[in-house]
Amino acid sequence: MSKPGAYTRTDVVETALRILDEFGLADLSMRRLAGALDVQPSALYWHVPNKQTLLGLVSDQIIDRAAEVNREDFMVDGALDWKALTLAEAGAIRNALLAFRDGAEVVSSTLALGLGAGQALARIRAGIDLVCADENLARVAAKSILFLTLGQVWHEQQRMQADSLGVVAPAVEAKPEDAGAKLDGSDGFGIQLILDGLEKKLTLKHGSR
Amino acid sequence: MSKPGAYTRTDVVETALRILDEFGLADLSMRRLAGALDVQPSALYWHVPNKQTLLGLVSDQIIDRAAEVNREDFMVDGALDWKALTLAEAGAIRNALLAFRDGAEVVSSTLALGLGAGQALARIRAGIDLVCADENLARVAAKSILFLTLGQVWHEQQRMQADSLGVVAPAVEAKPEDAGAKLDGSDGFGIQLILDGLEKKLTLKHGSR
Repeated sequence: MSKPGAYTRTDVVETALRILDEFGLADLSMRRLAGALDVQPSALYWHVPNKQTLLGLVSDQIIDRAAEVNREDFMVDGALDWKALTLAEAGAIRNALLAFRDGAEVVSSTLALGLGAGQALARIRAGIDLVCADENLARVAAKSILFLTLGQVWHEQQRMQADSLGVVAPAVEAKPEDAGAKLDGSDGFGIQLILDGLEKKLTLKHGSR
Repeated sequence: MSKPGAYTRTDVVETALRILDEFGLADLSMRRLAGALDVQPSALYWHVPNKQTLLGLVSDQIIDRAAEVNREDFMVDGALDWKALTLAEAGAIRNALLAFRDGAEVVSSTLALGLGAGQALARIRAGIDLVCADENLARVAAKSILFLTLGQVWHEQQRMQADSLGVVAPAVEAKPEDAGAKLDGSDGFGIQLILDGLEKKLTLKHGSR
């Protein structure tokens, strides 16, 4: 195995992100990555042992770039609006996924492998944990919000890809009813329903809150 | 273009479903499909004009095979339990997606293209429409449930695929905490939260219900 050159693991991941964004996940191969870094594929393995690990690092980077959410912005009369905070955190994750081509697919596959992007779930849970002491309930609610976000962004990114290839059915391209309502979920409405449902469950559990 | 042989469009779609289930979406090509039907690829285009249309037909078949849900099973004291009905419809869609390898990916991509699987959304909406007269609210709630279902099944199918390749990180493979809670969403908990949230919104809108 070759020794590492003058490039770092960070360079490898940055280059992978550029390839992903320009060509998509299907074209992000170890061979292409080595070519872009001007090294032999074997040299690459000194930094990342395999493709799965690379995708984990890329996922972590995608999520790490999600905008920070300032808790103080969600204080209302001295109390933290945990639902608005959670919605904002999920929105930041959503925008981070949208920032890179195939972002939802990379992060979903990495989560399935247990190799990265754990920070996404942690950020969504932060607000929920403030009011929900039931570990199981908090985890499942946060996971539902994350899966909903991934499912929506996946749909949008497939749609963008199809638009760019010109293969979207005409009936879908111009649906007047869609103009008013953001059916892509970008308004976070589905997540609000989950949070309202969770709040109701907590209220039933602990009396008025 | 060749004339159609002794096989029908149904044969084409059935064969495509078999290839999908055995080899996955990445290996479902028009060329492979033609080979399995023992015809020239050009002959195939007599039945389906392109790959997108084929995937639309395959998606429709996946959703058409979802188990029927009997409304009478959800009558409680002469009233229909619309939340339980909707949960059951979503569960039937979920199982249909799981019944074919890469089912979530095929259906999500088809929905993004506007080429099929519309029945999935219609079935989820059926129960919601019984109580929600607000067209926009009903549509967005149903879409949220569908996207959550697709996001969850996508995750599970990626995980199954990774398991079969032996590339899941050890920490994920045996997580004791997962034993009790079905974190994959198969218990429909996230969907219940959405329905509870919707119910709360309807109650606020129309007074007690």
